[in-house]
Amino acid sequence: MTDDQLHRITTSFGQQGLMRTLGASLDHVESGLVQLSCGFTDGLSQQNGFFHAGVMTSLADSACGYAAMTLVAPHMNVLTVEFKVNFLRPGRAERLVATGKVIHSGRTLTVCEGSVYDGSGQKLLARMTATIMAVETDGRR
Amino acid sequence: MTDDQLHRITTSFGQQGLMRTLGASLDHVESGLVQLSCGFTDGLSQQNGFFHAGVMTSLADSACGYAAMTLVAPHMNVLTVEFKVNFLRPGRAERLVATGKVIHSGRTLTVCEGSVYDGSGQKLLARMTATIMAVETDGRR
Amino acid sequence: MTDDQLHRITTSFGQQGLMRTLGASLDHVESGLVQLSCGFTDGLSQQNGFFHAGVMTSLADSACGYAAMTLVAPHMNVLTVEFKVNFLRPGRAERLVATGKVIHSGRTLTVCEGSVYDGSGQKLLARMTATIMAVETDGRR
Amino acid sequence: MTDDQLHRITTSFGQQGLMRTLGASLDHVESGLVQLSCGFTDGLSQQNGFFHAGVMTSLADSACGYAAMTLVAPHMNVLTVEFKVNFLRPGRAERLVATGKVIHSGRTLTVCEGSVYDGSGQKLLARMTATIMAVETDGRR
Repeated sequence: MTDDQLHRITTSFGQQGLMRTLGASLDHVESGLVQLSCGFTDGLSQQNGFFHAGVMTSLADSACGYAAMTLVAPHMNVLTVEFKVNFLRPGRAERLVATGKVIHSGRTLTVCEGSVYDGSGQKLLARMTATIMAVETDGRR
Repeated sequence: MTDDQLHRITTSFGQQGLMRTLGASLDHVESGLVQLSCGFTDGLSQQNGFFHAGVMTSLADSACGYAAMTLVAPHMNVLTVEFKVNFLRPGRAERLVATGKVIHSGRTLTVCEGSVYDGSGQKLLARMTATIMAVETDGRR
Repeated sequence: MTDDQLHRITTSFGQQGLMRTLGASLDHVESGLVQLSCGFTDGLSQQNGFFHAGVMTSLADSACGYAAMTLVAPHMNVLTVEFKVNFLRPGRAERLVATGKVIHSGRTLTVCEGSVYDGSGQKLLARMTATIMAVETDGRR
Repeated sequence: MTDDQLHRITTSFGQQGLMRTLGASLDHVESGLVQLSCGFTDGLSQQNGFFHAGVMTSLADSACGYAAMTLVAPHMNVLTVEFKVNFLRPGRAERLVATGKVIHSGRTLTVCEGSVYDGSGQKLLARMTATIMAVETDGRR
């Protein structure tokens, strides 16, 4: 991964208002692998006071998108085509750690596996499979 | 649907901190069908200034969960087992409207279809299929 | 849909050895909608003597692929990128009827909804969402 | 895993007519992990002469179901609730090898990861995530 790609990912992450709202940080970026995390606040909860499934998903989606972005051509943008998430345990954690990992990189489509852990990194809370598309800047898919 | 069930859904929705953070409202509840919506703010964006996929997903997930809740026994709670979302168009909208609709109701599992539209209700932005589980109050799945 | 497209679909269906093995027939083709069916035989069963989930899936996948093919440019081929299937009821039926319906048609990707019914057409056994990709004849995705 | 569980899995596999039709063999069973394989024949093809996506899916589904079965209580049966499959490469292979691996085992639901490789075991052709349900013998879900 080039410095330019790292710069583009950092800039893009900074532009995602939702990541700011979640209090998320971009913790690690390498070729084909990205890690994000965020801490629990009441504003991210479901009805039992745990992380809402939508927060786990948002974090994993951004992690997968940026993991894909480390491998696409520099002038291309990425779009999430679809994802599927299994929620294995309730989001009972002080902190969420989400990793996105490229498992297949094609010309147009990249398939990533997202994993959401609790802060200890020991408990797998959710598992995502995401299909990401490289698009020209006009954003048509 | 009984008044008691409507009350339980309204209460639970009010307890979801994330729905407050999204500025979401519970617009419609009937047996097997729930509609939520929220307006665009910068804090809900992805890098191009559209709704983040995670916001569309969060809204659809809550809509599906409450749609399932209209049909489960009064003493049961619901948990999202898994969902899959296809993003059909960018989240370029002033408002998101999400509906959750039960397509199959079993003893333990309920399958819902979630749809996310723009504010006009004309443009389908995303389609979800969700598996929801009825659980006793101890929350084990 | 042109006669040429109908011809290409009929020919392609005839070339799918698996459809022959399932005893499947191509019952209906119109723009954005295709229906296939097959009858039960012991060779298509799971351990309880019902249709195997893999048979329901195979039929729905081909129905979705051909539904997408009715809408792509004549010189393009289609590939299944991914699908997700919910099994709503056991495959206890004398005949399976699968429909594939286009719910969104983009430049590169088509999203289809597949439904598998029992022979009466009244009981929904499985629901698929499939992402189909239009590819040049070299088949790279 | 007890001998009794191995026996139940072997017997059940033998009762799946579809596995016989695919020419599939049960190659490996251990706690939480099952491997199946089958060779290519014309009767398993899609229109380009490769393995049909439905065959890859059927094999992975059975592998995941039996992987789940190694971990459920002896008197319980298993049902596929849903799965999602990403097709990473065309099914151009002389032989398919499918593994099912339990990634989370709950009281009612088991989540498995299925992987389909070509005969060399080097090329990942498809990746499945499956939700499997333990049911009493009456089969209600």
